[in-house]
Amino acid sequence: MASLFSKYEGIASALGSVVAAGGRNPFSVIIEKPVSSTVGVIEGRETLLFGTNNYLGLSQSPRAIKAAQDAAAACGVGTTGSRIANGTQSLHRQLEGQIARFFGRRDAMVFSTGYQANLGMISALAGKDDYLILDADSHASIYDGSRLSAAQVIRFRHNDPDDLYKRIRRLDAPDRAKLIVVEGIYSMTGNVAPVAEFVAVKKETGSYLLVDEAHSFGVLGDNGRGAAEAAGVEQDVDFVVGTFSKSLGTVGGYCVSDHPELELLRLNCRPYMFTASLPPEIIAATTAALEDMQAHPELRTQLMDNAARLHAGFVKIGLNASKQVSPVIAVTLETEEQAIPMWNYLLDLGVYVNLSLPPATPDSRPLLRCSVMATHTAQQIDKAVEIFRQAATKAGVHGAR
Amino acid sequence: MASLFSKYEGIASALGSVVAAGGRNPFSVIIEKPVSSTVGVIEGRETLLFGTNNYLGLSQSPRAIKAAQDAAAACGVGTTGSRIANGTQSLHRQLEGQIARFFGRRDAMVFSTGYQANLGMISALAGKDDYLILDADSHASIYDGSRLSAAQVIRFRHNDPDDLYKRIRRLDAPDRAKLIVVEGIYSMTGNVAPVAEFVAVKKETGSYLLVDEAHSFGVLGDNGRGAAEAAGVEQDVDFVVGTFSKSLGTVGGYCVSDHPELELLRLNCRPYMFTASLPPEIIAATTAALEDMQAHPELRTQLMDNAARLHAGFVKIGLNASKQVSPVIAVTLETEEQAIPMWNYLLDLGVYVNLSLPPATPDSRPLLRCSVMATHTAQQIDKAVEIFRQAATKAGVHGAR
Repeated sequence: MASLFSKYEGIASALGSVVAAGGRNPFSVIIEKPVSSTVGVIEGRETLLFGTNNYLGLSQSPRAIKAAQDAAAACGVGTTGSRIANGTQSLHRQLEGQIARFFGRRDAMVFSTGYQANLGMISALAGKDDYLILDADSHASIYDGSRLSAAQVIRFRHNDPDDLYKRIRRLDAPDRAKLIVVEGIYSMTGNVAPVAEFVAVKKETGSYLLVDEAHSFGVLGDNGRGAAEAAGVEQDVDFVVGTFSKSLGTVGGYCVSDHPELELLRLNCRPYMFTASLPPEIIAATTAALEDMQAHPELRTQLMDNAARLHAGFVKIGLNASKQVSPVIAVTLETEEQAIPMWNYLLDLGVYVNLSLPPATPDSRPLLRCSVMATHTAQQIDKAVEIFRQAATKAGVHGAR
Repeated sequence: MASLFSKYEGIASALGSVVAAGGRNPFSVIIEKPVSSTVGVIEGRETLLFGTNNYLGLSQSPRAIKAAQDAAAACGVGTTGSRIANGTQSLHRQLEGQIARFFGRRDAMVFSTGYQANLGMISALAGKDDYLILDADSHASIYDGSRLSAAQVIRFRHNDPDDLYKRIRRLDAPDRAKLIVVEGIYSMTGNVAPVAEFVAVKKETGSYLLVDEAHSFGVLGDNGRGAAEAAGVEQDVDFVVGTFSKSLGTVGGYCVSDHPELELLRLNCRPYMFTASLPPEIIAATTAALEDMQAHPELRTQLMDNAARLHAGFVKIGLNASKQVSPVIAVTLETEEQAIPMWNYLLDLGVYVNLSLPPATPDSRPLLRCSVMATHTAQQIDKAVEIFRQAATKAGVHGAR
C-alpha cells in the first residue's frame, strides 16, 4: 500500500542533519516556565528571550491577566460556537468597537487567529473575477489565503512598488477588481514596507490595498497603528489586518475597514464562519492589553530604543544584521554549518532566538531572527550581544569580533 | 474602478429578505451574558440555549475556570509564538500527552483552532501524488483543507460506504496513497457515520482513514472517544481529529495518531506552524475540562437521555426531526417562509437554536439545528418542546400539533 509519508522522507533526513549538527531539535524548544516577559526557563535554566513576538511585553500584563481571570469567572472558558451562531457575546462586539475606534474606522471583525484573519479576508475579498497581487515574501497565511481564493494570483518583487506597478500594467484585464496585499513589517527580516509608495500605485491603478500590520501594530506610527500610520497614508488603505498574538500578547486576529460591505463578509468568509469564536477570557485580556498599549505610549519609545541598542550591538561585533532598525532584527549567516551550531551555542549560553533555514528564508541563506521587547533592560540587551559575540566566534562566523 | 464587492450583492439582497421576513438578522445574535451553560441573556431576556456545541456544559466548568485563572497568573495570557518557535510551553506538551493517553495513541498535536486542525492535517497529509476522498457533506474546514492540499479530490455520497468503495475502485491510479476523510457526527444533521463500514472499505482498498470526531468526542463511545470507539474500530483509524470547542468548552483542535511520522508534520503543516499557539489559560482550561469529562461519565448518559427526550418531544408535536437520536437534532422545514418566522418566534418565546438556510443545508431545505447539553434539565427540555409547538403552529408548519 502506497504511503502518505513518502513525501516526508526529505524532511526526516533534513531534520536528522540539523539535530546531528547541533545536538538539539531547534523546532521543539519548550519554555518550561515563563519567568517574566523577557526570561523563560528552557532546559532548566533561565534564558533570555530574544525570539518572540511579544514586542510590548503585554503577554504578562497584570491588567490583561486580571481581565482574563474576571471574564473566565463571569462568562466561562469558551463560547462553543461560531460568531454567526451562538459565539458572539457582548465582549466580542465591544472589542470590535474598541479596535474600530482605535483605528478610526467604521467597523472591525475579530477572528479566532491572525492566520484565519488573513485566510478569511483574502479568500472572501478576492473572487474568481478578481486579481490578487501579493508581495513575493508574504507570510504563509497570505499565501494560504490566496490558495483558498479563486482569484488569479500575481506576485511582485518584495517591497518593490515599481515592480508592482509594472505587473498591474501588464494584466490581461486591468479593468477587473484588483487587491494588493502587503505587510507593514516582514516578520523574518524586519523589513518595513514602503506603504506610501504602494498607496500611490494603488491610486494610479485603481486597486484596493490590504495591509497586514501583524508585526507593525503597536510598534510603528505615533499611536501604534502601524506602518500605514507611520507613512501618513492610513486613509488610503482599504483593509487593515492584524493579530492579537504579537504586541497585544494574546491570540486572535482582526480586520478593520471603512467599507460598509465588511459587514457582509461575516456571512461569506469561511475562516470566520466555520470556527469557534475566541473565549471570553481571551477577548477580555485583549481588550485590557489594548487599553494598556494606549495608556503607555512610552512602551513604543522604549521598544525602538531597545531595537536600536541591539542593532548597534550586532553591528559593533561584526554580524550581518538587517539594514533597517525595527524590533525584528535578522542576523544573516552564510551557511547552515555556521547557523545551526551558533543557534545551539546561543541557547547553551542563555539566549533564545529563532533559527530559520533555507528554503524558509527570503534569500536562501540561514538567519537568526532576533526580536526585542519594550521590557528588555539595557543590561539584558548588552548581555545578549556579548553572548552573540561568543557564539559567533565559537561557530567561526566570518567577520565576528 | 471595478468593485471587489459586486460579488456581495446577492448576499446583501438575501440577507435583506431574511431580515424582512423575521425582523432580525439571525446571524448576528448577541449573548449579552451567559447565565449558566443552558441559559444566556439575549435581547435583555433569559433565553434557553438549544443551539450550541456545549454538549457537556463544560464551558462553565468551575474546574476549568479555576485552571484558566491560575494559568493566566502563572504563565500570562499568551505565548506570542508558533509551536515550532517560542510558543511551546510545558502546558502544551502536557496537554498533548494527556490527549494521546486518553485515546491510547502514540502522540497528539494541538492546533490553535479545530478549523486549523482539519486544514493542517488534510493539507499536510494529502499531497500532489495522493487521492483525498471526502464525504460530500464534509464540514467547511475539511473542504478548505482539500483546497490547500495539492491532492486530487474525490467526493462520495454522504455516509455511503458502498459509494466510497465504488469510487475508489474507479480511480485511475488506485495504487497511489489514498486518504479517506469522514466525520463522527455531522454537525448540522446529527447523522452518525457508519465508521465500521468505512473501516472495512479502508482495509479492502488499502487506504488511510481520518475521522473528525469534532461533534462525537465526549459524546459517543464508552469513554467518550467518539464514533470510532462506539463502533469498536478505533485501532483501524489512522488519524483522529477533534476540537476543544464543543464537548470541552474551550477552543482549539488536535490530531492523535499512532503513525510515528506525526512528529514530522509539525515541520510541514502550515496551519500548525504559521500561527500563534494557544494561550496558557486555554491550554490549562482544556486540560481541566478533559479531567472533568473523564471524572464524570454520567454527563454522557445524561446527554443521551436529554437527546432522547428532546427528540421524542419533537416527534410528539409532529415536527420532522432527524431520524437518528444524537445530541444534534435537526428539525427540517419545507420552506424559508416557514423557517425564518419560526426561528424568530422561538427567540421571541425564549429559545435560541441555529437557523440554517439553503444552500448551506444538506438537502436544500431549511432547518433548525437544535442541540442538547448534559446540563439541560427535563423541565428546560419540556419547556423548549412546548415553545417549539407554539412557534410551529404560529409559523403554519404542516403537521405540527
